[in-house]
Amino acid sequence: EVEEEEEMEVEKEVEAVKEVEEEMKVEEVEEEEKKGLLERLREGPVIGDGGYVIELEKRGYVTAGLWTPEATVEHPEAVRQLHREFLRSGSDVIQSFSFFASGDRISDTKNKFTGEAINQAACNLAVEVAREGDALVCGGVCQTPAYRKGATKNETRTLFRNQMQVLVDNRADFLLCEFVEEIELAIEVAKTFGLPVAASMCIGEKGSHDDVSLGQCAVRMARAGADVVGLNCHHAPMTVVENIKTMKKALQEAGLEPFLLTQPCGYHVDEAEKMGYLEIPEYPLAMEPRTITRWDCHRYARAAYDAGVRYLGGCCGFQPYHIRALAEELLPERGGRRAPAMDKHYPWGGGQVHSFFTMIRRRSTRDYWENLQPATGRPRSSAFSKCDTDYTVVLD
Amino acid sequence: EVEEEEEMEVEKEVEAVKEVEEEMKVEEVEEEEKKGLLERLREGPVIGDGGYVIELEKRGYVTAGLWTPEATVEHPEAVRQLHREFLRSGSDVIQSFSFFASGDRISDTKNKFTGEAINQAACNLAVEVAREGDALVCGGVCQTPAYRKGATKNETRTLFRNQMQVLVDNRADFLLCEFVEEIELAIEVAKTFGLPVAASMCIGEKGSHDDVSLGQCAVRMARAGADVVGLNCHHAPMTVVENIKTMKKALQEAGLEPFLLTQPCGYHVDEAEKMGYLEIPEYPLAMEPRTITRWDCHRYARAAYDAGVRYLGGCCGFQPYHIRALAEELLPERGGRRAPAMDKHYPWGGGQVHSFFTMIRRRSTRDYWENLQPATGRPRSSAFSKCDTDYTVVLD
Amino acid sequence: EVEEEEEMEVEKEVEAVKEVEEEMKVEEVEEEEKKGLLERLREGPVIGDGGYVIELEKRGYVTAGLWTPEATVEHPEAVRQLHREFLRSGSDVIQSFSFFASGDRISDTKNKFTGEAINQAACNLAVEVAREGDALVCGGVCQTPAYRKGATKNETRTLFRNQMQVLVDNRADFLLCEFVEEIELAIEVAKTFGLPVAASMCIGEKGSHDDVSLGQCAVRMARAGADVVGLNCHHAPMTVVENIKTMKKALQEAGLEPFLLTQPCGYHVDEAEKMGYLEIPEYPLAMEPRTITRWDCHRYARAAYDAGVRYLGGCCGFQPYHIRALAEELLPERGGRRAPAMDKHYPWGGGQVHSFFTMIRRRSTRDYWENLQPATGRPRSSAFSKCDTDYTVVLD
Amino acid sequence: EVEEEEEMEVEKEVEAVKEVEEEMKVEEVEEEEKKGLLERLREGPVIGDGGYVIELEKRGYVTAGLWTPEATVEHPEAVRQLHREFLRSGSDVIQSFSFFASGDRISDTKNKFTGEAINQAACNLAVEVAREGDALVCGGVCQTPAYRKGATKNETRTLFRNQMQVLVDNRADFLLCEFVEEIELAIEVAKTFGLPVAASMCIGEKGSHDDVSLGQCAVRMARAGADVVGLNCHHAPMTVVENIKTMKKALQEAGLEPFLLTQPCGYHVDEAEKMGYLEIPEYPLAMEPRTITRWDCHRYARAAYDAGVRYLGGCCGFQPYHIRALAEELLPERGGRRAPAMDKHYPWGGGQVHSFFTMIRRRSTRDYWENLQPATGRPRSSAFSKCDTDYTVVLD
Repeated sequence: EVEEEEEMEVEKEVEAVKEVEEEMKVEEVEEEEKKGLLERLREGPVIGDGGYVIELEKRGYVTAGLWTPEATVEHPEAVRQLHREFLRSGSDVIQSFSFFASGDRISDTKNKFTGEAINQAACNLAVEVAREGDALVCGGVCQTPAYRKGATKNETRTLFRNQMQVLVDNRADFLLCEFVEEIELAIEVAKTFGLPVAASMCIGEKGSHDDVSLGQCAVRMARAGADVVGLNCHHAPMTVVENIKTMKKALQEAGLEPFLLTQPCGYHVDEAEKMGYLEIPEYPLAMEPRTITRWDCHRYARAAYDAGVRYLGGCCGFQPYHIRALAEELLPERGGRRAPAMDKHYPWGGGQVHSFFTMIRRRSTRDYWENLQPATGRPRSSAFSKCDTDYTVVLD
Repeated sequence: EVEEEEEMEVEKEVEAVKEVEEEMKVEEVEEEEKKGLLERLREGPVIGDGGYVIELEKRGYVTAGLWTPEATVEHPEAVRQLHREFLRSGSDVIQSFSFFASGDRISDTKNKFTGEAINQAACNLAVEVAREGDALVCGGVCQTPAYRKGATKNETRTLFRNQMQVLVDNRADFLLCEFVEEIELAIEVAKTFGLPVAASMCIGEKGSHDDVSLGQCAVRMARAGADVVGLNCHHAPMTVVENIKTMKKALQEAGLEPFLLTQPCGYHVDEAEKMGYLEIPEYPLAMEPRTITRWDCHRYARAAYDAGVRYLGGCCGFQPYHIRALAEELLPERGGRRAPAMDKHYPWGGGQVHSFFTMIRRRSTRDYWENLQPATGRPRSSAFSKCDTDYTVVLD
Repeated sequence: EVEEEEEMEVEKEVEAVKEVEEEMKVEEVEEEEKKGLLERLREGPVIGDGGYVIELEKRGYVTAGLWTPEATVEHPEAVRQLHREFLRSGSDVIQSFSFFASGDRISDTKNKFTGEAINQAACNLAVEVAREGDALVCGGVCQTPAYRKGATKNETRTLFRNQMQVLVDNRADFLLCEFVEEIELAIEVAKTFGLPVAASMCIGEKGSHDDVSLGQCAVRMARAGADVVGLNCHHAPMTVVENIKTMKKALQEAGLEPFLLTQPCGYHVDEAEKMGYLEIPEYPLAMEPRTITRWDCHRYARAAYDAGVRYLGGCCGFQPYHIRALAEELLPERGGRRAPAMDKHYPWGGGQVHSFFTMIRRRSTRDYWENLQPATGRPRSSAFSKCDTDYTVVLD
Repeated sequence: EVEEEEEMEVEKEVEAVKEVEEEMKVEEVEEEEKKGLLERLREGPVIGDGGYVIELEKRGYVTAGLWTPEATVEHPEAVRQLHREFLRSGSDVIQSFSFFASGDRISDTKNKFTGEAINQAACNLAVEVAREGDALVCGGVCQTPAYRKGATKNETRTLFRNQMQVLVDNRADFLLCEFVEEIELAIEVAKTFGLPVAASMCIGEKGSHDDVSLGQCAVRMARAGADVVGLNCHHAPMTVVENIKTMKKALQEAGLEPFLLTQPCGYHVDEAEKMGYLEIPEYPLAMEPRTITRWDCHRYARAAYDAGVRYLGGCCGFQPYHIRALAEELLPERGGRRAPAMDKHYPWGGGQVHSFFTMIRRRSTRDYWENLQPATGRPRSSAFSKCDTDYTVVLD
């Protein structure tokens, strides 16, 4: 009986979501034309958004370990709010919060919602907030556990096609495939939809898990048809900038010229090896001391831009103020286009002149913040950890 | 003309807020009786909420350096969302977001809203969200720059009375005075409203700025009539626990027995002296490496409870998940009362068993997280900073 | 048989030492009058010497864990060399290397030499080297395990008398008693010899093991008759300077004015509690990263002198160059009196101008070295350790 | 007049040294045959000695910045003592203390002794102490500033021949050339003397200053005729082990099989680039926190041996106890051959069981010391420094 009641409750929630969707659909008609991704990239740097799962876990809406995005159905206001914060901070792109919403993951973790319902709600929220500004909707395509478990190429293609169809039906402006292994298949399928395709891998200096080098991965993604090629998550911003240079060199040598993308994680994890922050003993529940500052973001944005990157964002650990720092650093390159949340921020700590205290007023210059090596307050902590590189995969 | 337009816009926003208020008032009638603060404190530990200004700055709604809370009017959905996250995380109290909303500060910083409008909106939001659970509304009373600038005792009393009247009119369940110097006056005024009064100072081991010792401050607050006496902000959790012990001893020696409160800042700032984190070179824009983990919160909650503290919360730097950790640690003492966001959290990292990777699955035990000294990822950072203790006050 | 042979060999060595002693005695006649300790202290700061056991362990002549000084008999050239290095570096005092040479310790550890033979050789070496300069011979008196094991006061007095008689017979210029508990008895006995008596305890901020406060310890040593009162070993230089200030205050309040002495250990062990470096997990075989620099010595010398200390030296961890740094810092206060090894040292890194490399030439100024916070090169090390304070004594 | 007196004094000193030499020569006749370097290397690992200049600077006999070895004439007892400590610690080789004794450096720095006198005394001391054990005398050949200043190849050859002639005349058992650039010339000359030749460069991962790769350097040294090829100084032990592997691989690919040598510096300087510790801001007068422990030496010895290195020693920063740790680690590989100073050392901290205190007795196991990450005691220090890589050479 209890189960029945629960089910009914769930159904009601799903209904409520659908209603909101209906309302939205009516309004959608009025939408005007907006510039597409490739056009924007040609004009200047595009700022992506930040990380959803890690931040929503801290806010109480995502479960660490499961990382499933049922919040789109359960607590749409929380997801909407975070989308909006990124938009206000300068994101030109709102990525649908569909990480780990592939059907198999959802059923494996006994979620009370279907992957379909979650993804549909995710699209609605992304579309809704993107329209509040002039942002593009990025349809996020993620890996399929099925492939690891031995699905054939054709089966995997079908899984991808289903995943993307929802995104395309829901007005995604482009598709972003973030993978390790089966990315060529995904790009192949994505190209059939006629939208721009970005492809990004979360690999480090030593290349992919199956030992394909950084450069080779870039070349293969571009050859498979990706318009934008890059690196995301797992590794620290400045590490990712170094690695994208390696990719760029290989692309040039192969005569390929896709746009470059970087969306690193927002943590200092320089000692990590192949799998990046996953190897770090502090991941995921004690990463605080490794979190990057806004000044790290300035450095990252400048270095990435100088390296030729035109799509700059962040992944896990990037909060709205990190994204704003990217947008502030690249303000000249973006024709002075200000983000709403910049009105709540003096560049380079300038607001500290309003303090009552002399000691704090001193902290209001670029020179001060740019040269500060922030102390950690942790005399019992070391700088580096011993990584755990037992990559053995367990598929229960 | 532009100014006129702007003014009109502001007016419109204020109107919109008022409308929401009206709606709320209608609903308020239905509200039922709830237990008061002192009754709850007698029954077991009460969990406060976390910090608003620092968190809303990161989300793009508060300006670092000004720290004024006009977001209550400009972006009520952002404030409401953060209130709600604390509530969902286990806060028994929602404090009105009225920090630095005293009239003089607001006009000094040329805010386009009045302190009155901001405070009214703050109350509405706190009342609204508190009702979503069974939480109390805490009316936050803050220091008056006027006193520093030489206002007489009577003038100061009047300022306090005005500040508190709004809170009381708006159904605050108790008043919390957070000050350095003029706290006895505030308590005196607060007592005239007939509500429970909590009083809390942000001082450290060496006592108040005008050299009154920790113990003496506690005794004076209790003698002035505070029902709850404690410490908030500026210093690190475990430092604050040590200091509350000193206060408790002095209170006992004076035959006084108020409830004890601690709401420390969420940063490791052990090297700081009188003014706590304000002296730290990293404050306020590079505090990331000093941020406490959820495991630090477990330790803090246990130590504070064991020291006799019954009102436990956090101040600047405490995010929703930190509050949840307090509530989780004290679950037995709170009769097993679960907070909604606990459904999105396995205690002590248990959710990591759902990872694909062996290396991550290992991180799913209490033993693992309790004993981890998190590395900082920052080989170029030291643990301690050289503090800047130039406390000279500049009153422009 | 083997034992017999060994015994004969030992006897031969002891004979050889005696011969050297005989030669020395002849020469001794020619010695001229030198100024005594108290006269020197009145004239200006006196520089002590550094640590013997730790340094000779690294050179291969002392066994870590046993710490017995049989090197005075086995390898007199090694002890003589270290004495000489301290003398050349500016030590006004050569302390006989008799640490842990009390008879019972020697027999407990099954040493092949007697405490008597070791002490006699120690005196000879100290006298020999002191004469190479104009240094005083300090007869080091150390604690007697017997007292801990329950010897009566009179038995302990006798043990001390025996220990000191050898030192006095061998021309010690003053006696230095370094203890924890039974120091008043030792001072009482020492006074009967008519030599100046210095007394020094290795305690920290929290006072002695049996909970006598720092100030009270100082007063009791002075009242027992000590001409010089101070602190040695176990704690870091700047900690010891803070603690000697506490002692000085207590002495002044008691109307006592002995000379003050500090001979701290040469390690950064700020997190240690009662027993100082003994509690530190790195002690004694991984103390390298904690070793003080010569610049730390400059700071210590200046701070100690300013605090009124007139006998400045070091204990475990102080090497010859550390002592030279003390002498260099106090050169003006010592009337410009140069130590021989200063001819092999440019103050404040001045010699770096002779480098071929620009990057090294930059490191030739006081400003450079005084402000350098030396990096540790150890990203996997923390700053502080968790101390082990299991002080339980095991008397096998 | 003063000058004349000084000169006479110097002359007297030189005379005294000559007398000692004469005595030595008489004894030399009795010397028996000993195994040569290559024979020993074939039998098992050979342990080199440690660093002289850095250690003798701390003892007061060498001037930082000049680094000239006039102590061999001025204070032969100090040099003899350090040689002896290395011998006692297990060194199979005593290297003549002739670093920077090339004639031009000596006259450039206005030394009162000639390079010839210093080198002659250096040889005498090395030969004397080597004979106390069964050690080989290593004739150290060092770079010639003249080459940098533009001397021709033939001029450089002559300079080398002169330098080596003294070493050969004084019974050096083999020649060790330690250089950066002109090493092939040196090897060529060295081969003409018919002694085994070892060649070693102080380069890092990125190869030589003039951009020859690690592997290429190794191949060129071997092709020039070196019997032993390796790396010394400048870089940290484990870095050097990694680099020797690269060299080994290149040698194997070129079909070459010289013995391999590593004599790293005794500091943690992982962040350094081409020039190693010279770039580190702490070099040379605040390197204490970077100093390796004896346990680091165990790790280094094992890793180097496993990588195929058969000549293992240390350079700047290696003290006698570090050398003993190498010999202890390789005791099985050396047929259990014990060094004298091992009698003053319990392996892996075993001696701590003799402490009175429980907390110290716990530190008597291999497991304890092997797993200890030593804390630094320095909360205001970072792990890594910003290196100064201004390699510009100034030839005054």
